[in-house]
Amino acid sequence: MEQFRNGYLVADEKIVEVGPMDLLPKGITYDQCIDAKGAILLPGMVNTHTHIGMIPFRSLGDDYPDRLRRFLFPLENECMNEELVFTSGRYAIAEMQLAGVTTFFDMYYFEHQLAIAAEEMQARALLAETVIDSVTVDVPEPMGGLQYAESFLPKWQGTKRIQASIAPHAPYSNTIEVLQQADVLSEKYNVSWMMHVSEMDFEMEKFRKERNQTPIEFLEDIGVLSPRLVAAHCIHLTDHDIELLQKYDVKVAHCIGANTKSAKGVARVRDLLFAGVTVGLGTDGPSSGNTLDLFSQMRLFANFHKTFLRDRSAFPAEAIVKLATIEGAKVLGMEDEIGSIVAGKQADFILIETDSVNMFPIFDPYSALVYSANASNVRDVFIAGKQVVAGKKLVDFDVTQLRAELAAAMEQCGFKRKALKAMEK
Amino acid sequence: MEQFRNGYLVADEKIVEVGPMDLLPKGITYDQCIDAKGAILLPGMVNTHTHIGMIPFRSLGDDYPDRLRRFLFPLENECMNEELVFTSGRYAIAEMQLAGVTTFFDMYYFEHQLAIAAEEMQARALLAETVIDSVTVDVPEPMGGLQYAESFLPKWQGTKRIQASIAPHAPYSNTIEVLQQADVLSEKYNVSWMMHVSEMDFEMEKFRKERNQTPIEFLEDIGVLSPRLVAAHCIHLTDHDIELLQKYDVKVAHCIGANTKSAKGVARVRDLLFAGVTVGLGTDGPSSGNTLDLFSQMRLFANFHKTFLRDRSAFPAEAIVKLATIEGAKVLGMEDEIGSIVAGKQADFILIETDSVNMFPIFDPYSALVYSANASNVRDVFIAGKQVVAGKKLVDFDVTQLRAELAAAMEQCGFKRKALKAMEK
Repeated sequence: MEQFRNGYLVADEKIVEVGPMDLLPKGITYDQCIDAKGAILLPGMVNTHTHIGMIPFRSLGDDYPDRLRRFLFPLENECMNEELVFTSGRYAIAEMQLAGVTTFFDMYYFEHQLAIAAEEMQARALLAETVIDSVTVDVPEPMGGLQYAESFLPKWQGTKRIQASIAPHAPYSNTIEVLQQADVLSEKYNVSWMMHVSEMDFEMEKFRKERNQTPIEFLEDIGVLSPRLVAAHCIHLTDHDIELLQKYDVKVAHCIGANTKSAKGVARVRDLLFAGVTVGLGTDGPSSGNTLDLFSQMRLFANFHKTFLRDRSAFPAEAIVKLATIEGAKVLGMEDEIGSIVAGKQADFILIETDSVNMFPIFDPYSALVYSANASNVRDVFIAGKQVVAGKKLVDFDVTQLRAELAAAMEQCGFKRKALKAMEK
Repeated sequence: MEQFRNGYLVADEKIVEVGPMDLLPKGITYDQCIDAKGAILLPGMVNTHTHIGMIPFRSLGDDYPDRLRRFLFPLENECMNEELVFTSGRYAIAEMQLAGVTTFFDMYYFEHQLAIAAEEMQARALLAETVIDSVTVDVPEPMGGLQYAESFLPKWQGTKRIQASIAPHAPYSNTIEVLQQADVLSEKYNVSWMMHVSEMDFEMEKFRKERNQTPIEFLEDIGVLSPRLVAAHCIHLTDHDIELLQKYDVKVAHCIGANTKSAKGVARVRDLLFAGVTVGLGTDGPSSGNTLDLFSQMRLFANFHKTFLRDRSAFPAEAIVKLATIEGAKVLGMEDEIGSIVAGKQADFILIETDSVNMFPIFDPYSALVYSANASNVRDVFIAGKQVVAGKKLVDFDVTQLRAELAAAMEQCGFKRKALKAMEK
């Protein structure tokens, strides 16, 4: 990335001009001028894998080995509804914006509600309805998400910041027909789609046993690998898998925090990048990784990959900041619009203050961002030229109010009561 | 730890009473009453291994393989002086207090200056002068730190919060006599001492080659293992090493962030704890781990140890919070004074706000502290009953002012200029 120690940026909805201060055109007129003295300017961050409807699960049963069956599945089936997903989504978007995430790729239920929330909050997002081989909270029959997606996708076309998409849950939890239909829809509407791939031990065993293949070999076999597929996790990869991902230009959403908190392992990111595969960073859901910010992910990424490669110079800080910005944009197929601060791209950018005690000295701003910054250092956030965070506060919303609405939804559907009961068992 | 959902705490210099709110004695009188509604009360955190004089090095050459020789050693030798260590120490103490760290165990040069800084800032600290087999910035001959320590230790005895100590740099960088004399001094003044132990690959090879021993076997041989020794890092341990650490009740300062950022490895903490060895958390210096807060360490600890053990239920969040508090106190031999909120102990406690967006919902406060909180959530900090942080700000100091003084010292001694020059090479 080009660096200016002292620069200017002119933007409306798009970035109009950017350059070092001594080239600032004279006599320029503007509605608003932001003094960014001492702050670090970055492109808005891109969170490539989220489940934002799951805020209610945060801090619930984190360290239980049987967490999914004990807490997540029952509470999801019994309590999740439109209102809870909508209020959770708004809260999560607030959390991401306050942390400098301007674009995200989500996968959950009631994605139409999340699209409304995202539209309302000026977020930029791909929102993918989940398809899975069981009855879920928003569809009456197994794989019902496919029909949901078929009507959801055309509804959110042609909007500027929001695109609807589809997300089969995983290769093992869908029929071949559903996976192929997801690919067809993604091609028809020219939008990326998402799936959890090569994440679970049992997934690897199942495909080995039943087809003598890896999940990625299976996906090639059925013809659904393409540049539009975002494969989340990809923890367990063979060399041949990596060749296939490169061959079909499949994108990878790497979720280091969630993967390591759940002891699933560390994906072979250096090998992926070396092979030419595009990789971005994702937080996974707030129940898996507990936060939705990419600062925590960047630090975990640095420490885990350096340690696994036994090389302190692997992945210098600048490369990690790129994974959180321009590489994330590429994962979503949006690199022409966002991910870097270049004239003509969307004006999605953030300012990170360096007044806080953890931000001195700064010999290398990338080092400061990866090794000592945290989400609380984000000061101002702009999306499509509109300021959504100013001075560490939301401009148009109030976190206390969003929380109150979410808490009310958690009470009303019985989520809170049932969660506390499940903890007592 | 005992938990109250709604409790009270009465303190002067020590904790007088603590209990659930419905047992609050009537008619109690007080000078100050803090409303902690919605906040989490914790004992002040204990950072068991720091080099606080090294703030100037933060973000300098982080990802260089030859960082020590290219940046650290030359700049230390050419520029470190009393003023730079003092201003760096004050800044680092401010950073720790704002992050909820009330006690730390430091190891660097000019420790007398750091003792003055710590005393002035109401910190609780063990401050250990480094001894190493080379000329250093504060002594004119190799191992001169020993003489420094011999006069430094008696000066800071009998003060309430500050204790002087000694820190041979490592087993390989000192004579046997120095190591034994450090142990003698530590016994004479009844204070813990510190050393880097089993941290480096070359250290392991050297002792294997020269003595067919591990560093810890060597230290047993020369008679310096005791409950007063705090061994920092201990990354490379044999089963026999762990037996020896247990047998002599040697304490371990575990620095997960610094160890993994430098790709050195992950210490066998579960095995240590299983054997009965006391382990606390340390950040290492701000050049090694980049931050001095234990929130970042707790999260790295969770994810690394769960992943290395391939067990998501290993080290539940509550156990990790204990490592950062009471276990850290035990490492420093101070568990009768600090580390938990119990009547009669020193009134070192912190309040963590839960208003910020990352802190909702909280089904389990320990999960929230380990997996989603960060240093910026610390609201109020008390040490020996004196409030040092109120509403996320230092009570008696100003970070901007401390930074200006440190920056001036970095300019004056040529540190900044030489650092920038070293980056250009």
